[in-house]
Amino acid sequence: MTEPTAPPLPQHLSLITLGVADVAVSRAFYEGLGFKAAPGAETSVAFFDMSGTILALFGRAALADDAGVADAETVFRGVSCAFNLASEAAVDAAFAFVARQGGRIVKPPHKVFWGGYSGYFADPDGHLWEIAHNPFWPLDAHGRPQLPK
Amino acid sequence: MTEPTAPPLPQHLSLITLGVADVAVSRAFYEGLGFKAAPGAETSVAFFDMSGTILALFGRAALADDAGVADAETVFRGVSCAFNLASEAAVDAAFAFVARQGGRIVKPPHKVFWGGYSGYFADPDGHLWEIAHNPFWPLDAHGRPQLPK
Repeated sequence: MTEPTAPPLPQHLSLITLGVADVAVSRAFYEGLGFKAAPGAETSVAFFDMSGTILALFGRAALADDAGVADAETVFRGVSCAFNLASEAAVDAAFAFVARQGGRIVKPPHKVFWGGYSGYFADPDGHLWEIAHNPFWPLDAHGRPQLPK
Repeated sequence: MTEPTAPPLPQHLSLITLGVADVAVSRAFYEGLGFKAAPGAETSVAFFDMSGTILALFGRAALADDAGVADAETVFRGVSCAFNLASEAAVDAAFAFVARQGGRIVKPPHKVFWGGYSGYFADPDGHLWEIAHNPFWPLDAHGRPQLPK
């Protein structure tokens, strides 16, 4: 069997969807962090253009149903998202801001074994976000970390 | 208290990290889907530049430890990632390809209530990926879906 010439899946992550208990509560939380949601009268879902990849907030039960899987309580989801920032001071400032916005600080930022500076917070549903400074991954003009070539 | 002028968090998703049982197994799975990993001798972690957002594969226990949270078995994680493609035919072709590469088809693609065409597959650790065609979100030249302005 021959593969098609164009790859069937682009090396591009279109969306990440977080299943949440209450879309309005979670939307307000992420708006409080400074993010602008895409316009729309929809109350059952919210979309944020995170500079190329879209962050979606969708009812957890609806997401399970959409995927055709059983919902279940979770403690650790085996998934984290991250913001990479330009300096340790920027990470500290971001954690102070997140705490003021009601984010739960899971792990305050500190120097980590791989040479960076990082901590974690949780959103209202316990979804984990890391905020990190990685001195080995320079940020481009759009703030996107550049992997080694 | 006054907020700083520059927002502390950029509206940009730097990374999504999937916690996996075996980084080598998962790396091979994603390479089998056609993705090129960033170079590096590291065997405990793998990075893929997904066109702006980085996909990381990292040991599940190591990820729990990194975040300072307890590991726990999960069934449904309340998280999905997605590829948006240009047509229903492209979605069908992608599912056929994923199945040949050993991905588990959780939900074969079909027309969905919001007017698109979508299905789900799972990676070796059960992380959910949607492959969808959304006629309301045109793709730009880089294949990135464009949210309504």
